[in-house]
Amino acid sequence: MKQSKYKQVMNLITAKITGGEWTIGSQIPSQRELAKLFQVNRSTIITATEELKADGLLVSHVGKGTIVANNTWSLMKVDKPINWSGNITLGMHKESMKTVKMINELEAKNELIQLGKSELSPDLFPKEAFQNIVQNVSSTLYSLGYEEPKGNLKLRETICHQLKSKGIQASPSSVLIVSGALQALQLISIGLLNKGSTVYVERPSYVLSLSIFQSGGMKLETIPADLEGPIPKGMKDLHNSKAHSVLYTIPTFHNPTGYVMSERRREQLMQLCEDEQIPIIEDDVYGDLWIDEKPPKPLKASDTYGNVLYVGSLSKTLAPGLRIGWVVGPESVIDRLADLKMQTDYGSSSLSQHVAAEWLKSENYELHLAKVKEELKIRRNIALNALSKHLSSAAEWNVPKGGFFIWLKVLPPIQNKHLFEKALSAGILINPGNIYDKHSTQYIRLSYGFAAYEEIEAGIRRLGEMLKNI
Amino acid sequence: MKQSKYKQVMNLITAKITGGEWTIGSQIPSQRELAKLFQVNRSTIITATEELKADGLLVSHVGKGTIVANNTWSLMKVDKPINWSGNITLGMHKESMKTVKMINELEAKNELIQLGKSELSPDLFPKEAFQNIVQNVSSTLYSLGYEEPKGNLKLRETICHQLKSKGIQASPSSVLIVSGALQALQLISIGLLNKGSTVYVERPSYVLSLSIFQSGGMKLETIPADLEGPIPKGMKDLHNSKAHSVLYTIPTFHNPTGYVMSERRREQLMQLCEDEQIPIIEDDVYGDLWIDEKPPKPLKASDTYGNVLYVGSLSKTLAPGLRIGWVVGPESVIDRLADLKMQTDYGSSSLSQHVAAEWLKSENYELHLAKVKEELKIRRNIALNALSKHLSSAAEWNVPKGGFFIWLKVLPPIQNKHLFEKALSAGILINPGNIYDKHSTQYIRLSYGFAAYEEIEAGIRRLGEMLKNI
Repeated sequence: MKQSKYKQVMNLITAKITGGEWTIGSQIPSQRELAKLFQVNRSTIITATEELKADGLLVSHVGKGTIVANNTWSLMKVDKPINWSGNITLGMHKESMKTVKMINELEAKNELIQLGKSELSPDLFPKEAFQNIVQNVSSTLYSLGYEEPKGNLKLRETICHQLKSKGIQASPSSVLIVSGALQALQLISIGLLNKGSTVYVERPSYVLSLSIFQSGGMKLETIPADLEGPIPKGMKDLHNSKAHSVLYTIPTFHNPTGYVMSERRREQLMQLCEDEQIPIIEDDVYGDLWIDEKPPKPLKASDTYGNVLYVGSLSKTLAPGLRIGWVVGPESVIDRLADLKMQTDYGSSSLSQHVAAEWLKSENYELHLAKVKEELKIRRNIALNALSKHLSSAAEWNVPKGGFFIWLKVLPPIQNKHLFEKALSAGILINPGNIYDKHSTQYIRLSYGFAAYEEIEAGIRRLGEMLKNI
Repeated sequence: MKQSKYKQVMNLITAKITGGEWTIGSQIPSQRELAKLFQVNRSTIITATEELKADGLLVSHVGKGTIVANNTWSLMKVDKPINWSGNITLGMHKESMKTVKMINELEAKNELIQLGKSELSPDLFPKEAFQNIVQNVSSTLYSLGYEEPKGNLKLRETICHQLKSKGIQASPSSVLIVSGALQALQLISIGLLNKGSTVYVERPSYVLSLSIFQSGGMKLETIPADLEGPIPKGMKDLHNSKAHSVLYTIPTFHNPTGYVMSERRREQLMQLCEDEQIPIIEDDVYGDLWIDEKPPKPLKASDTYGNVLYVGSLSKTLAPGLRIGWVVGPESVIDRLADLKMQTDYGSSSLSQHVAAEWLKSENYELHLAKVKEELKIRRNIALNALSKHLSSAAEWNVPKGGFFIWLKVLPPIQNKHLFEKALSAGILINPGNIYDKHSTQYIRLSYGFAAYEEIEAGIRRLGEMLKNI
């Protein structure tokens, strides 16, 4: 006789518990999720879980959902607490903010209009050119071993060549290949900063949405800033010769505000940081994406002291999925970071590195960049037009001169959390301002880089309708 | 008039210093290295550096080599210490052992006979099959964005399918894709262990050559062991209900000794760890590489409590350059690790993940594995024959039943350091025992996986000659 459906579901759930996937004390998925997982009706799930509760395997707590109470093994023997699960709250590394974790999950959902994503649209992926590169690389692959500690030499040479056009002189030995700019920050945090040191940041800042520096025991302090960028005088007063402090800055097409630090301010900042001995982390992942005019040169271009660690990446100009970025700095510092890189993951994907080297060397690189910038201009203008049309009385914004972001100030008094949730239930994923700065609760980081033209327009229209009804 | 060669070299060196690549206080490369770098004679280097010393840019210290004393800028102004360079000794993460760093660099040198490398020979790389996979993947690539926090779903599904054949039941939601097994350990260290907790390890152990756990403030304690594996009674006495301790073990084809934990010992160990609530990290990256007989099932296969975090990888069976590994464990624990993975590098290369998924799904996977095992048998036997012929009176060893390694006990009293250096000057790179255990100074980890047949034979012959002359 065929087993009834709910019995089958009982067995599936029991297997998850017995196999250690769902451990004692952990919450099982919701009825709706279970119904989807096991491809049955919700009523079947209810019957099965009620039976398992009667058996003592599950228990329901108000507000906590359904929890695994025992496993089959523990029912027969003395009860024991579970081991690895008890370790989840240990470990020095802090958890991500709840909203950030949700966004990480929801960014994979194609059914949402993605107005938060800091990524180029798949429409801008250079399919053919990229396929050619990958096929060329694969046909010359005779093995795929580990690369040198600092990364593939050809890739580092190519990066040095590209950096020249930005006024940065570097040799391959002062370049480390990393798996994206984020990993550079992680390595700097565990390798070059000690507990209790201070990281000066712009406010709001991308880095405030991360726990990298905080997990290492560093303090984050906000630098006073105006429209030109961080104010040297304000920074000097704040600093007051504190030992062990560094500056983290995104001078060009800042994340999340989109602003560009003025040339004069760059010079002042470099001078101040040399005088006060404040090393600088310069995050320049958006620098190539200028729309209206070429931005000033990176800080690194005028660095005569090895005072700047420069971070770049292919994630914003080509594709984040390659996971290829770079750090440029004094050789001794790069040596230290390369050792840590080896200790944490033995180097980035060799396949990605080979492909990245060919990409940067090929003529496609410049052609693609030109196309991307042209497209970003169109997308920015679509977003600005839609904003004028649908949000002119409900929000304020600046016109970004490059990059992906419009930093939108929402005028009606609505909490970030509610705005995020309301937008989500209207099918729109936005990045609320409070993940970049706890005081920016009236802001949204709007990205025009990812969604399709009509989605940008529709998403902003819906946001406008939402805000009218508050 | 053309500039004289030494003047050109002076300018090149000055540019490195002025540009901040070689910072004040750092050592510049040796004369030989500079000659190679700038493609000139050593005498030209000597003239150039003497001039720069006279200018006050360089200074020589006995035993410290040539140091950057000033940069052109600092010569004009007040002297200032350098910033980032001063940070090299900060940061909680420990430096690698000097020998380990040297090995990391020297493993890239093709002119050496590589008898230490834990990697398959390029001869065993399945060129054609792999090229086909990469070309198939590239022709279906329409974009290359970030993957889900736990990694590409298709890859996780395929891994779950493969794990079944080892007796491990897992769902994709309890699998996290990482950039190799090492990164799994790194994430576990920063995410699941707290400062002061104890990690039990086998002695010698691969993990002792790393600073991952020590950098997080964990203590490493060695478990008493015999030929079957860790001795439960010994481990129990050692443990004595210490809070927050975990076990790190490589039960199958252990690195560096090559041993296999007996079936009985696996059962005892699992029981003990459940009773004493000691979570287990099971590193099974060599498990598929059996030569003589199929090894016992992984510990994870009998884990009914979510007590085992299982770590696997493609690095040893296919190619380390993909940088693809996985961790399998209770869902809540994998959720925590996935969050940390997102915080440290936003996921592994999507390109590598796509290729890995296709590889594991294709029929090539099994065919390739069969070929690798056959080849490893041949290579092991070449190594064993050479050892009998050239080292029978100078060393002792066990016959490994799989994996890459022979753990060689050297009989003549020679310090590991000298042995390593002597071998290196004879053109052979070996991994000395002391990097795996400070007491194993009479041992070498010999790998027969990488070098060519004739190199294995020649390398061992030369080692034999070396040891005769001590």
